[in-house]
Amino acid sequence: MLVSSRNPLNIGAAARAMSNFGFSRLRVVNPYEKAFRTAVSAVGAAELLASAEEYDTIAEAVADCTLVVGTTAVRHRELHHPLRRLENGGRLIRKHMGSGEVALLFGSERYGLSKQDLSFCHWLIRIPTLEKNISMNLGQAVAVCLYELIRDGRAAGRSEKQKLAAGGDIERITDLLADVLSTSSYMLPQRAAETEQRIRRMVRRLKLSAQDVEAWLGILRHLQWQMRSGTKKAD
Amino acid sequence: MLVSSRNPLNIGAAARAMSNFGFSRLRVVNPYEKAFRTAVSAVGAAELLASAEEYDTIAEAVADCTLVVGTTAVRHRELHHPLRRLENGGRLIRKHMGSGEVALLFGSERYGLSKQDLSFCHWLIRIPTLEKNISMNLGQAVAVCLYELIRDGRAAGRSEKQKLAAGGDIERITDLLADVLSTSSYMLPQRAAETEQRIRRMVRRLKLSAQDVEAWLGILRHLQWQMRSGTKKAD
Repeated sequence: MLVSSRNPLNIGAAARAMSNFGFSRLRVVNPYEKAFRTAVSAVGAAELLASAEEYDTIAEAVADCTLVVGTTAVRHRELHHPLRRLENGGRLIRKHMGSGEVALLFGSERYGLSKQDLSFCHWLIRIPTLEKNISMNLGQAVAVCLYELIRDGRAAGRSEKQKLAAGGDIERITDLLADVLSTSSYMLPQRAAETEQRIRRMVRRLKLSAQDVEAWLGILRHLQWQMRSGTKKAD
Repeated sequence: MLVSSRNPLNIGAAARAMSNFGFSRLRVVNPYEKAFRTAVSAVGAAELLASAEEYDTIAEAVADCTLVVGTTAVRHRELHHPLRRLENGGRLIRKHMGSGEVALLFGSERYGLSKQDLSFCHWLIRIPTLEKNISMNLGQAVAVCLYELIRDGRAAGRSEKQKLAAGGDIERITDLLADVLSTSSYMLPQRAAETEQRIRRMVRRLKLSAQDVEAWLGILRHLQWQMRSGTKKAD
């Protein structure tokens, strides 16, 4: 819900972020620029912008909401509301979204939400920006808040690693490499065992992916073939 | 690191988000618009923008980085890189930031990163947008990624509740309310105990905050005084 937004580009940007993250109900309260529906910054969100609901007052705009959360950059102003960091507030909003309508309020670019606006809120969230430059661009603030709401905490720990090469394949590569290095005299016969062990450890530290096994084997076979024919010529 | 960005406003917005979240080293590779340093969208980040380093090639721009991560909206294109969701990739980037320089690459607004650009990356991240509108505005994408990097997971669970009223204060309020209701004949003498218990439970469900105790006591004392003088007059 955008309250008293001044710049149609920012309303468009907010709509775009909503569309990116799967939110569909935009409410605009008392915008400075009535022509906000044509904002060119709403790439992929023209429909969402066209169906945005416009209200004259916050009271009407939040009438059907069971939780109203305001956003603020301010930390120290005489806030009469509990103020939560986005990480924590987002969790509580997600919880509530299962059981009722939640309104997330963003104020005007210049002044934020007024005291009157804030009096409709149950509590407030703040994006953890630095004191040095506390105030975010409206479209960026909307994007960050909505991202927190759809963020999947379990995905953070989920392993999405590439499939690693199997031990057998790694050993085939090690053998071939050892053979190539032996043929090329990198490996001295008297220290062969020691060198081969070192190479085995080095190959394992490469974390070869399964999909690259054949390509590496091809390269090594090629080198092996070249070394052997070279060696034969030298004989 | 912004690669081949077309719009100076987006470069400015990226700089603003960096400043909001405490990142200071912006590198710009081969921008379309050479005059990006004057972007008006860089509120609070003029200094950061002025000190941005400009490069002709990615190779030069990432030369001192030990981890290079690309951003992409694409899911299915023949990606030759491991692709991680932002929640997971962000965690790995944070880990790496302790030990080496990390470059986070954002491509041009229209085409993203090219295959050639991607070949400099160790792996890729994607912001979990919907298939329906997968592509984010550049400034918003930068803001979301940097937020994930500074996000404090522990803050999500941290209790930032307002201080609740103590049991003794709640009981004083309950007593006063019961007295007011009794004086006002809401409470029938024959059902007084039952009604008082019901009121006690209702007051406890209000989750009164400590800071409001005196105000509520004041209101109730005022009502009590009015009820008693009214009752006296009626006698």
